[in-house]
Amino acid sequence: MREDETAASGEDRLIARYFRPLARDPGAFALDDDAAALTPPAGYDLVLTADAIVAGIHFFPEDPSDKVARKALRVNLSDLAAKGARPLGFLLTLALPRQVADTWLAGFASGLGADVELFGCPLLGGDTVRTSGPVTISITAVGAVPHGGMLRRSGAQAGDRILVTGTIGDAALGLLLRRDRALAERCGLAPGLRDRLVERYLLPEPRNVLAQLLGAHASAAIDVSDGLAGDLAKLCRSSGVAAEVEIAGVPLSEGARTILSREPALIETIVTGGDDYEVLATMSGGRIDGFRRQASALGVAVTEIGKIIVGKGETRFLDAAGRPLLLAHPSFSHF
Amino acid sequence: MREDETAASGEDRLIARYFRPLARDPGAFALDDDAAALTPPAGYDLVLTADAIVAGIHFFPEDPSDKVARKALRVNLSDLAAKGARPLGFLLTLALPRQVADTWLAGFASGLGADVELFGCPLLGGDTVRTSGPVTISITAVGAVPHGGMLRRSGAQAGDRILVTGTIGDAALGLLLRRDRALAERCGLAPGLRDRLVERYLLPEPRNVLAQLLGAHASAAIDVSDGLAGDLAKLCRSSGVAAEVEIAGVPLSEGARTILSREPALIETIVTGGDDYEVLATMSGGRIDGFRRQASALGVAVTEIGKIIVGKGETRFLDAAGRPLLLAHPSFSHF
Repeated sequence: MREDETAASGEDRLIARYFRPLARDPGAFALDDDAAALTPPAGYDLVLTADAIVAGIHFFPEDPSDKVARKALRVNLSDLAAKGARPLGFLLTLALPRQVADTWLAGFASGLGADVELFGCPLLGGDTVRTSGPVTISITAVGAVPHGGMLRRSGAQAGDRILVTGTIGDAALGLLLRRDRALAERCGLAPGLRDRLVERYLLPEPRNVLAQLLGAHASAAIDVSDGLAGDLAKLCRSSGVAAEVEIAGVPLSEGARTILSREPALIETIVTGGDDYEVLATMSGGRIDGFRRQASALGVAVTEIGKIIVGKGETRFLDAAGRPLLLAHPSFSHF
Repeated sequence: MREDETAASGEDRLIARYFRPLARDPGAFALDDDAAALTPPAGYDLVLTADAIVAGIHFFPEDPSDKVARKALRVNLSDLAAKGARPLGFLLTLALPRQVADTWLAGFASGLGADVELFGCPLLGGDTVRTSGPVTISITAVGAVPHGGMLRRSGAQAGDRILVTGTIGDAALGLLLRRDRALAERCGLAPGLRDRLVERYLLPEPRNVLAQLLGAHASAAIDVSDGLAGDLAKLCRSSGVAAEVEIAGVPLSEGARTILSREPALIETIVTGGDDYEVLATMSGGRIDGFRRQASALGVAVTEIGKIIVGKGETRFLDAAGRPLLLAHPSFSHF
């Protein structure tokens, strides 16, 4: 990190107080140099990914800062998980407006520190800068996979089955519940279920525990960050195949099922809304049982939702009668 | 990079049109995956650094976007140079307000592409996000050094000499010339010399050509980004030593000498202003002649400016009579 000359200067204090404790890797040099040194594990490739989140765009300015920090790291960890990589560390660039309070920063560092421990992913370096705009958190995460073994979007083949981890649509419904305060009541959604959906938007649960297993079994994978439909379409285009998904097979949480039973049109939000941070993977049918059993032993439910077919990137979501769902906005984008 | 579902979507077009051509490394997968894969060169450590620049803080919103892009990359390349590392590639996170024009982006990508070629540093991946604030460019650069060979801030020893590359203070004076339109005339500065100083602010010239040579000879190094005085103080604190610099020995460009002859007080701007992006290094006296000769053969002038002494981080800038210069703000910081 860049820091300041005088011991009492703002950036210097900020780094020493909040971020140095998270930089325990010896190659981070306690953030007392211009760069980190990383000795790559022999026989491994590095996997590098960068994702940023911006206040007012990817999170609400009033969201608790510990969760904002964890979300910023976790959206990157989710990419590593889907690529079959185990985390080695990350670099953090934090653009801060002048009015950010010390308590906000303390919460941010505390949340980040919790995930550094939880995911074994130390802070390696970064930068703090002033901005006249919103808080902007840019993270580059570094992971490792056996040489040549990074799981790609492009390996799916006709005949492969399509799997997803966890449940789909919770975060998008959580965001909707925050924006439409009457929705929970309209749907008869119990407060506990509402809170759970809102929490899924605030704090993704990346599936890093499955990284090695995915690397061993999947033919292709992508993390579901821009919606199931959109990310499946990307995987299909990269692989030069098409996909059919049975809507009834898409795994839903109890809260999502409750909402959907009252407002069936929200199936579109569920399959196209962003921020799931589950893993979408393809593999041959013969591998599914073993994969699902081992994933379950690691605490992650895996559900088969459809199959890869010959085609050129087309994706169809079929209802119980075999009719395709027409999606107005197949993928989420801020652009 | 994250991208969008429909072929016509904004972010997808933006990546395909402007950034895919810069991602020629096979491990970047033409930006068609969630992450890049990098096979580290055997026997080398990776060196990782992240620096961001923000419109209105680190550059003027009206600056030409090709130079903004190059500056964003070069401030990171400068860190790699000072650590003795050769560039392997970089990740780019670009936060864009809605009103950014296509011509701005085209210029940005064109400038970035020129430096990708010039420094042999391919784009590996990244993210593009919307912001309600100013353009924010965050780059993580990845380099390589022989295992255990990253040049640190902390290796300086009493008796070592202090060297800098190029000339000092040009960028800070260039910034001053932009802010104080009358300064050039007051100092009788010819337009060509004024333009050269302004250009040094717009477009740093990182010393990556010296990286290997620095690794072979220097005991410690840091890139001069926050001002000579402040960065020397950081190096001294990290090394647990002190430094004495002879002001008369600090290398100045013709433009800087002209300004200083009329406004001697600006010596403080020269030694404390930021954005030099030269390398400050220490080495034993016996190495200096050989190092300087080899650097000169690579097209970079190197000047001895002082010596490392026993101490605890103190730095003194001495005038011709041996009196220390008193600095009001020893280092530049936006915090």
